[in-house]
Amino acid sequence: MKIAVFDEYRIGIVDGSDLIDVTEACPSYSNTWPPVFMLPFIEEFTNIRPKIEDLIRRRSRMVALRDVRLRPPVPMPTKILAAPVNYQRHQKEMTAKGAVYEGMVLHTVAQYGVFLKPSSSLVGSDSVIELPFSDRRTDHEAELAVVIGRRGRNIRREEAYDYVFGYTGLMDITVRGHEDRTYRKGFDGFTPMGPYVVTKDEMSDPQHIGLELTVDGEVRQVGNTEDLIFDIPRLIEAASFQTTLYPGDIISTGTPEGVGPIRAGNTVRLTVEGIGELVVRVSQGHPDSRRGLDI
Amino acid sequence: MKIAVFDEYRIGIVDGSDLIDVTEACPSYSNTWPPVFMLPFIEEFTNIRPKIEDLIRRRSRMVALRDVRLRPPVPMPTKILAAPVNYQRHQKEMTAKGAVYEGMVLHTVAQYGVFLKPSSSLVGSDSVIELPFSDRRTDHEAELAVVIGRRGRNIRREEAYDYVFGYTGLMDITVRGHEDRTYRKGFDGFTPMGPYVVTKDEMSDPQHIGLELTVDGEVRQVGNTEDLIFDIPRLIEAASFQTTLYPGDIISTGTPEGVGPIRAGNTVRLTVEGIGELVVRVSQGHPDSRRGLDI
Repeated sequence: MKIAVFDEYRIGIVDGSDLIDVTEACPSYSNTWPPVFMLPFIEEFTNIRPKIEDLIRRRSRMVALRDVRLRPPVPMPTKILAAPVNYQRHQKEMTAKGAVYEGMVLHTVAQYGVFLKPSSSLVGSDSVIELPFSDRRTDHEAELAVVIGRRGRNIRREEAYDYVFGYTGLMDITVRGHEDRTYRKGFDGFTPMGPYVVTKDEMSDPQHIGLELTVDGEVRQVGNTEDLIFDIPRLIEAASFQTTLYPGDIISTGTPEGVGPIRAGNTVRLTVEGIGELVVRVSQGHPDSRRGLDI
Repeated sequence: MKIAVFDEYRIGIVDGSDLIDVTEACPSYSNTWPPVFMLPFIEEFTNIRPKIEDLIRRRSRMVALRDVRLRPPVPMPTKILAAPVNYQRHQKEMTAKGAVYEGMVLHTVAQYGVFLKPSSSLVGSDSVIELPFSDRRTDHEAELAVVIGRRGRNIRREEAYDYVFGYTGLMDITVRGHEDRTYRKGFDGFTPMGPYVVTKDEMSDPQHIGLELTVDGEVRQVGNTEDLIFDIPRLIEAASFQTTLYPGDIISTGTPEGVGPIRAGNTVRLTVEGIGELVVRVSQGHPDSRRGLDI
């Protein structure tokens, strides 16, 4: 199933160009703040699946996909983990001549571990994101994200897929500079996610998922999860060695080579094989530098 | 008021050695997972305060503090932000001869900005925390934490206290090493918080709050928020320049000098003036290094 969250935080299943509203299948649903309803939905998915399938058959509440506002398909996970350097060709490009980390040692996920992004940085597809600075480089990073389905700690790689609920697309937008990684990657709007969560039964082989990112139609990043340094089971193992994973938690798998700057006016499209197209438009924010940091 | 969360996620107000149960004043209360009920409680606090005061007067449900299990007073904030280096004498001790960052340049919060800790790392007072490694240095960091009361972005320092709900104690437990800061500080149990949230009307002067941390009775850290590099209003301004702050969000203000290692068997006590005593005991976890990182 392709699961979307739309409009005033309804839950829908994608059916061609339509969306079937299955919100009533969600246990303890509430659209009041904080919007955590997808967490019990994911936790109880196996139990509520017959009810969801029944709602799909009946098609009683249906809307056209083009008429809805898409939200992040998990609007408020308890945490978003991400792999910092998890493709070797991306590691190389970042330390090459003229690059962001020229002359520096850039390790990989195997040395850095995972880092955090705040849920406040999430936006759904077709959102407009703001550049917080007009004079600093801000980059796109195209990623496949894993959505966790079951609570777990110290998960072994051999059993890791049992803990996966599904997959989605994610852009890890990043300002370059000397601040802490989580500060540079945590601005509001810096984690576009979606357009849908696709349940794992519909992804034939998560070890070979292709992704492509374009800026104004120009191809910037082409990657495949077969080139991951830590593959999905190893990432889940390493992350859950550190922290308890909860249903709805996100683990973004890292970005392939081709990372580059985005500018106001750009349209950025991430297409993930089997998932769909996540699109954002870039605008210029109006920073008041007095309120930021001292650099 | 001193607000505690206890036992199976009840809300209590501290009254001497007792706790008055005011859970029924909480809007849309639920003790199902995820435990986000303190967020609407904080958001609606001004409106529900008369009801809370009525419950306190009636003392209908009361338990002895010594008989309860304390939870983190905000069990699941939407995010926990923390200041990395926000006391000058702490900056100096970390780069001194023989210290963790000897010979390296260590900037401050003014250059790093704030970083994130996961809600999964929170524990309440009287918890036992596990050291994930037996052969690596793990440190205590004593901090005052601010609890946000109102949603806000781009908050100016002059109005920052309007966005504060209250204050609590926090230990930012940290493994030293080369992983990303959020990985080293994000292990389960690495964010003891509490014992209570004290509403801001009961803290006479947040610019002068004393804190003291002991390990097995030996004084290790003595600090005062008057020595902060970014004081509380400036921290709120800098954090909200990056991200929308929500009710219940935590901003930990950083640690003074005296940071040092903890070992299995230690009892660590943080006393924050006007708030109370946060106590944790340290035990040794049983790491399976095969599942961690490659360093």
